[in-house]
Amino acid sequence: MTGACLIIGAGDDTGAAIARAFAREGLTSCVVRRPRHAEDLEKLAQSIRDEVHKALAIPADARDEDEMVALVEKIEADVGPIEVAVFNIGANVNFPVTETTSRVYRKVWEMASFAGFLMGREVAKRQKPRGRGTIIFTGATASVRGGKGYSAFAGAKHALRALAESMARELGPEGIHVAHVIVDGMIDSRFIRDNVPGVDGMRDDGRILNPDHIAANYVMLHKQPKDAWTQELDLRPWKENW
Amino acid sequence: MTGACLIIGAGDDTGAAIARAFAREGLTSCVVRRPRHAEDLEKLAQSIRDEVHKALAIPADARDEDEMVALVEKIEADVGPIEVAVFNIGANVNFPVTETTSRVYRKVWEMASFAGFLMGREVAKRQKPRGRGTIIFTGATASVRGGKGYSAFAGAKHALRALAESMARELGPEGIHVAHVIVDGMIDSRFIRDNVPGVDGMRDDGRILNPDHIAANYVMLHKQPKDAWTQELDLRPWKENW
Amino acid sequence: MTGACLIIGAGDDTGAAIARAFAREGLTSCVVRRPRHAEDLEKLAQSIRDEVHKALAIPADARDEDEMVALVEKIEADVGPIEVAVFNIGANVNFPVTETTSRVYRKVWEMASFAGFLMGREVAKRQKPRGRGTIIFTGATASVRGGKGYSAFAGAKHALRALAESMARELGPEGIHVAHVIVDGMIDSRFIRDNVPGVDGMRDDGRILNPDHIAANYVMLHKQPKDAWTQELDLRPWKENW
Amino acid sequence: MTGACLIIGAGDDTGAAIARAFAREGLTSCVVRRPRHAEDLEKLAQSIRDEVHKALAIPADARDEDEMVALVEKIEADVGPIEVAVFNIGANVNFPVTETTSRVYRKVWEMASFAGFLMGREVAKRQKPRGRGTIIFTGATASVRGGKGYSAFAGAKHALRALAESMARELGPEGIHVAHVIVDGMIDSRFIRDNVPGVDGMRDDGRILNPDHIAANYVMLHKQPKDAWTQELDLRPWKENW
Repeated sequence: MTGACLIIGAGDDTGAAIARAFAREGLTSCVVRRPRHAEDLEKLAQSIRDEVHKALAIPADARDEDEMVALVEKIEADVGPIEVAVFNIGANVNFPVTETTSRVYRKVWEMASFAGFLMGREVAKRQKPRGRGTIIFTGATASVRGGKGYSAFAGAKHALRALAESMARELGPEGIHVAHVIVDGMIDSRFIRDNVPGVDGMRDDGRILNPDHIAANYVMLHKQPKDAWTQELDLRPWKENW
Repeated sequence: MTGACLIIGAGDDTGAAIARAFAREGLTSCVVRRPRHAEDLEKLAQSIRDEVHKALAIPADARDEDEMVALVEKIEADVGPIEVAVFNIGANVNFPVTETTSRVYRKVWEMASFAGFLMGREVAKRQKPRGRGTIIFTGATASVRGGKGYSAFAGAKHALRALAESMARELGPEGIHVAHVIVDGMIDSRFIRDNVPGVDGMRDDGRILNPDHIAANYVMLHKQPKDAWTQELDLRPWKENW
Repeated sequence: MTGACLIIGAGDDTGAAIARAFAREGLTSCVVRRPRHAEDLEKLAQSIRDEVHKALAIPADARDEDEMVALVEKIEADVGPIEVAVFNIGANVNFPVTETTSRVYRKVWEMASFAGFLMGREVAKRQKPRGRGTIIFTGATASVRGGKGYSAFAGAKHALRALAESMARELGPEGIHVAHVIVDGMIDSRFIRDNVPGVDGMRDDGRILNPDHIAANYVMLHKQPKDAWTQELDLRPWKENW
Repeated sequence: MTGACLIIGAGDDTGAAIARAFAREGLTSCVVRRPRHAEDLEKLAQSIRDEVHKALAIPADARDEDEMVALVEKIEADVGPIEVAVFNIGANVNFPVTETTSRVYRKVWEMASFAGFLMGREVAKRQKPRGRGTIIFTGATASVRGGKGYSAFAGAKHALRALAESMARELGPEGIHVAHVIVDGMIDSRFIRDNVPGVDGMRDDGRILNPDHIAANYVMLHKQPKDAWTQELDLRPWKENW
């Protein structure tokens, strides 16, 4: 493969694994996080280049329309056509609805829905004339079910799923593969490693999601021939931990 | 019944019918629309008072947190406890995702999701200590399914449904009945009467939703005893028109 | 109202309450259970007649096509047009799939799906030429979600829901209102009263479904005007017990 | 890989492609169809052996419990442990509910649900003590949505999906991967080639599902590491034909 892969939300272990996986396929992984994580982002890009694959760190705020427009423009101009775009920003919060501030409610939506819309739209504009491309959105259990304390988070994830479904129906016939992946379970991420006791045992036992295994499914989706596209799939460990 | 019924989005025929229905039950219907519709709003309130029922027109922007906080405070202070709150703002738009401006995407969400959150939160704060109350959100087909051109609208309606489900799970055990009504079909509203030919025949034949019939279901939901609450129901004409 | 109401599965407290509720509306409630419960069935019918309402006990096996054909024929000939038909047979079992016998798997389907199909079809045949009528199927949580041990039960309830949805789409435009009611929670039935400690406290607190309150929703569905029909609603107590 | 792959419903092009795909992975594909298709079945097995892969044709009626028990016993004894089992029997029929015979309603369920239960149960019994194995059920649009004329077919497919979901929740923690694949669209099968004009153009354009591409997803599901299992995915062509 040639061309670019855009990964928005390449901060956690999942986004990094996805970037690495597509770079190994030959794409230039353009990883994006907020400017304050610029250093970590550059480290990620460098670690991919250390494997002799192509990667570029581009700090940007995914909620800022101008930055997103410029980002896509820059990649298309400097790197090549965006063949794959992955939206991987989570924003998991849990508050009783009566204690949810409007700031939180809005911010969660801006991060998990609005930024996804900006990425989806800007990438679709480029892919549509070419009649090809893949756009993948990362979902969660809250994408399909509300719950106690999840007014903000479930709202944002439901909206993102509606975006994915609407774009799939609209852009599928244009040759663009839009998919939604529901990641349902604990991921073997730095946060979990730092905060959950017994992670090593769970990892050995396959009870927490391995980011590389998640990433393999994103690559698989991108490679699906166009007569057999998947619009939605879920990923979860064989055994729940709680 | 005594106390107040708050109806946000009392501009179209549905909101007006709901306000009238609860006023007939004895509640004081507090109808809310944006200030620029203040005159129509006052006419609605007056028409309810003409029936010798209680109604109050309160122009306000439902997307403005301060206005919503003040609104709920005012009703609770001046009218009585809000026994029922209905969120009835629609925001139906249809644009290809590539032609959806960030302004439209955000505005649809602010009207159809964020305003619903503000109403839901402020009313829940008051109802929770009393251990009773009803909060109803109006949904649409786009609440459960995305579609071509519906990136913005389906996103906002999905988010509102996630809010309703999350609030139902959280506040049900507090004695607050939260429900979501999916209105699926053409409503006999002024817009339809002005724009769709043959409305009279469709009305006679029961092919368009009568706002009073929609409203009857909202009253029914409010009256359900607490051992048998409905969280979601749909309403649609027996025969589709297209 | 005049005419007949057919209730298949009038053995538990819910079916009895539904029969009573429609009889109070003026219909002749024709209650059906298996012949071995003929005595209890007759008592139910008599208790309705004691209220000076109309009821008829007709023992029959709902899984037997000939009996169901004859049943509907008999009611239409002797009592009047079947205006409402309610299918209320439960068949809740829970077995690990590896220990589920084919006899159980088949029997649960015959009781909860096949019998529903027979009732639905026979009643629809009569209602279609008249262009009116209501057919209601009772569902459960297992109608929308599988679960550990529910291979048989969830399968049968999913099939019944698919029947209800298919019939609604097919027969709605013929003037027949087909609805599915998801009853989600413990019902105040003889079984529960005999087996669950603390039922009185739960009843007082509204934590178990009152059969009369369930029944009120069935009557409400039948009375909905045809421009605003509900296809599916859920009923559940405000507070879960577990 | 070693061991056996059982494919029930290896008659159409999809089942054959799945058998071929798993044989190419090293498994011995045990293909099953009704005895009257024994000759075609043997041809399929031979064509796989011609590729120097392993295959066995075993005619059997999947709705017959004794035959299914014997089938699984025979494969486990003669071939090896069943590592993968695929249930691929379709039974697509469309009749108005009022014209659906009880024979059709029952037969569709026996083919599409009951046979799936028998296969699932017998295979699960063998896989459970080994703590590993994959069981895949083929679904359709009717698995998740009823429709006009689909009382029988949607009922059976809904029941199969409930089986898959129930088994997944029950057997996942036992190390058995149960998945449901929703194949949504026209498949490039003999039936379609014989009956739909313009198939060649549709195939070239990727508008009909290629059985080999479907099969690739079944193999992918079997290979998923146990920390990242998919329970359900859909497959559909990029462009609908109607």
